[in-house]
Amino acid sequence: MNKLTLVKVGGKIVEDSETLKQLLSDFAKIEGHKVLVHGGGRSATAIAAKLGIESQMVNGRRITDEETLKVVTMVYGGLVNKQIVAGLQAIGVNALGLTGADLNYMRSEKRPVKDVDYGFVGDVKEVNADILADLIARGVVPVLAPLTHDNAGNMLNTNADTIAGEAAKALAKHFEVTLMFCFEKKGVLMSETDDESVIPEITPALFEKYVAEGIINGGMIPKLENSFDAINAGVKQVVITRADLIHTNGGTKIRK
Amino acid sequence: MNKLTLVKVGGKIVEDSETLKQLLSDFAKIEGHKVLVHGGGRSATAIAAKLGIESQMVNGRRITDEETLKVVTMVYGGLVNKQIVAGLQAIGVNALGLTGADLNYMRSEKRPVKDVDYGFVGDVKEVNADILADLIARGVVPVLAPLTHDNAGNMLNTNADTIAGEAAKALAKHFEVTLMFCFEKKGVLMSETDDESVIPEITPALFEKYVAEGIINGGMIPKLENSFDAINAGVKQVVITRADLIHTNGGTKIRK
Repeated sequence: MNKLTLVKVGGKIVEDSETLKQLLSDFAKIEGHKVLVHGGGRSATAIAAKLGIESQMVNGRRITDEETLKVVTMVYGGLVNKQIVAGLQAIGVNALGLTGADLNYMRSEKRPVKDVDYGFVGDVKEVNADILADLIARGVVPVLAPLTHDNAGNMLNTNADTIAGEAAKALAKHFEVTLMFCFEKKGVLMSETDDESVIPEITPALFEKYVAEGIINGGMIPKLENSFDAINAGVKQVVITRADLIHTNGGTKIRK
Repeated sequence: MNKLTLVKVGGKIVEDSETLKQLLSDFAKIEGHKVLVHGGGRSATAIAAKLGIESQMVNGRRITDEETLKVVTMVYGGLVNKQIVAGLQAIGVNALGLTGADLNYMRSEKRPVKDVDYGFVGDVKEVNADILADLIARGVVPVLAPLTHDNAGNMLNTNADTIAGEAAKALAKHFEVTLMFCFEKKGVLMSETDDESVIPEITPALFEKYVAEGIINGGMIPKLENSFDAINAGVKQVVITRADLIHTNGGTKIRK
């Protein structure tokens, strides 16, 4: 199988024109097939504020009311996505911007209301990766916005990490997939205070050991659990790294 | 060659959820391959106003300054485009929303400043219809937003009629193309005061005759000249009709 690298970057990097330019240049250097998944929450918050719409956050998640859904559809699917696509085309990468509605590649259902009503947020139910895989095989580079649809006419807001994970799992039937999550550190660290103490590789056994020792803790635990989920679903490896290192062999590799 | 119908609808229809629903239902009834091109100017004007950006119009054309470019990229490429795509998917049409940057299918150049500085408006220079034609042949229905790119990283605002004409001409190498322009009347009328006096067919000879007789006048003259341009470039026929008639055999057919 051919190799495919799926890179997820947060909004902070893609929403600043200088860091975006550097990211796209680094991304273009990745060999083989590739996919980019982006956030855009800061721009959405800023534009919502200008439009007089208050952004409500619960547990770090945006509550997507009807007006907010319009804003994220505009900002993620239009502004941020097209700036990335145009930027990639300018450096010779044949990018194609997509939401889950396009080609019906990712269908979701509105999250059921339990303790919190998240509003128009979609939980992924189905990924149709065949057309996507075919386009990728022909040199197209999908740029995935954090939006899905319910196949009943409604767009839904979906977390970019989730989009990345679900797309990676579905594409693993067609490619040898590396799923790369960018965050602010060079990788998972042995010591929080030493930015150079990157753990090169984490296997399930090492994960258990590091958690028991308290080396891996807090928000990194669910992140790694999600990584192992992806690997158990066929993804070859997950890499946790910093955006400026995506074209290097750096970061923490999570493997079986 | 297989038949392809390319329908261009203005913003007024696609920006109202009821008329949009009817349009998409009628569009879905068109047999064979199809493409939808949409406007969205009213939404852009409304959102620009809410954001405190004044929409400047000269000769009915929007002046696209840097902030306005962001608004149209959001509104045309995000909000309006994705509402259409999600709406089509809901009725079983495998839609794919595109700007000129996506797949680099339509490259333009910023319009040179002469009497008027239109700002970030793109004049079309190149249409790469091969991937588009291949997707269409496989059942995909492109939904084209009135946006292009300069292949140097910048999105540009481009008139939806122009997008429709240029896409139709490029796709004429692959399909027998009918280009359909929707406007508020049932077709080109023999008598302005009689909505039922639709001229069924206009050939170059009839065009000359009707112009000489004053039956065709005003803004309809350049519209028909553009239609003949498309036909001379390989488009099979141009139809001028009302949005609710696109799935019928009505309207005015412009043919060689």
